[in-house]
Amino acid sequence: MQPVSVPALPQGYNLRRVGKEDFQDKNLFKTLSILTTVGDIPEPKFHALIEYWNDRKEIYNPMVITNAENVIIATGMLFVEHKLIHGGGKVGHIEDISVNPSEQGKKLGLIMIRNLIQIAQTEGCYKVILDCDEKNVRFYEKCGMKIEGVEMGYRF
Amino acid sequence: MQPVSVPALPQGYNLRRVGKEDFQDKNLFKTLSILTTVGDIPEPKFHALIEYWNDRKEIYNPMVITNAENVIIATGMLFVEHKLIHGGGKVGHIEDISVNPSEQGKKLGLIMIRNLIQIAQTEGCYKVILDCDEKNVRFYEKCGMKIEGVEMGYRF
Ligand SMILES: CC(C)(COP(=O)(O)OP(=O)(O)OC[C@H]1O[C@@H](n2cnc3c(N)ncnc32)[C@H](O)[C@@H]1OP(=O)(O)O)[C@@H](O)C(=O)NCCC(=O)NCCS
Ligand SMILES: CC(C)(COP(=O)(O)OP(=O)(O)OC[C@H]1O[C@@H](n2cnc3c(N)ncnc32)[C@H](O)[C@@H]1OP(=O)(O)O)[C@@H](O)C(=O)NCCC(=O)NCCS
Repeated sequence: MQPVSVPALPQGYNLRRVGKEDFQDKNLFKTLSILTTVGDIPEPKFHALIEYWNDRKEIYNPMVITNAENVIIATGMLFVEHKLIHGGGKVGHIEDISVNPSEQGKKLGLIMIRNLIQIAQTEGCYKVILDCDEKNVRFYEKCGMKIEGVEMGYRF
Repeated sequence: MQPVSVPALPQGYNLRRVGKEDFQDKNLFKTLSILTTVGDIPEPKFHALIEYWNDRKEIYNPMVITNAENVIIATGMLFVEHKLIHGGGKVGHIEDISVNPSEQGKKLGLIMIRNLIQIAQTEGCYKVILDCDEKNVRFYEKCGMKIEGVEMGYRF
């Protein structure tokens, strides 16, 4: 299998896992709030979630990109599902992709996606999927993905 | 919040979690093979997967429906993702829905979906999502779901 190609980040930018220290400066929350409602998360609840994710590293890969000022400006999650089908195969699910508006158009979204696909490959997934709005289909196609189906939802 | 309504199963039919004993008669594999490739899963690998799922019951809910002859004739998985967005909310993902052709059209698919939605509600999810082919959209609408977006995929 060909290794997934991942373009380099701009000078001074870094990709890393989310950590407990990311509660303080609120840039993680700011970046996620571009995508949807983040809501009120007190520090102990945030820390508990990070611990929950860290205790399940084979499932949860919550990633961020920081800029040259060490500020979080992009987010993305890959979580890995163990299935019975496909010979007991694994599927990677990409979630919560967001790039700060001041940093959009610099390929950071694409680099995040390609990194998450690379993690999925390393974890042995046979495919990676995500759900998006119609308006973002072209972006994901530029990341090498194809339309596969329809997302259906039920809200409580 | 209104509790989700779940229609009753036909007389003699039961909904239950998948177990290690389901390796023997192969009806789980037969039902899943309607959906996609199941592939070769030796017994130790199957048992290991069941243990993996059972050790993570707050994430994995692999369910089946058995008929009056106690044969598995429908499958469905709900897995629960812990997020940061929506106040540290949870999302239920429905996967691997399949009803044996000889039992289709008896509302078993709908009853499976409604049960998985009910589990998601009990687990405190704010929404449930799934991906499907265009041709199954009407079925999921009959289950109370709505089109929410586009599924994109990347295959290794
Ligand atoms: C969608 C989003 C993640 C894209 O990130 P980005 O860093 O701005 O995009 P990139 O610079 O990596 O774009 C890569 C390519 O896709 C293109 N592209 C980006 N967004 C696009 C869109 N909505 N429609 C069409 N093309 C798009 C870019 O022009 C670029 O093309 P090029 O290689 O030909 O120059 C970002 O705009 C965003 O966070 N939006 C708001 C939140 C959101 O909608 N998240 C996704 C939820 S499904
Ligand atoms: C799709 C599937 C799960 C439906 O299960 P089922 O038990 O046959 O369906 P139900 O009897 O519960 O149907 C509930 C309602 O949806 C309707 N329906 C079912 N499948 C439909 C379809 N493909 N198109 C339109 N309506 C459909 C039924 O007619 C019924 O409507 P009614 O209440 O007005 O009578 C089943 O046919 C199946 O396993 N198909 C093959 C595998 C598959 O495609 N899985 C889904 C992957 S996304």
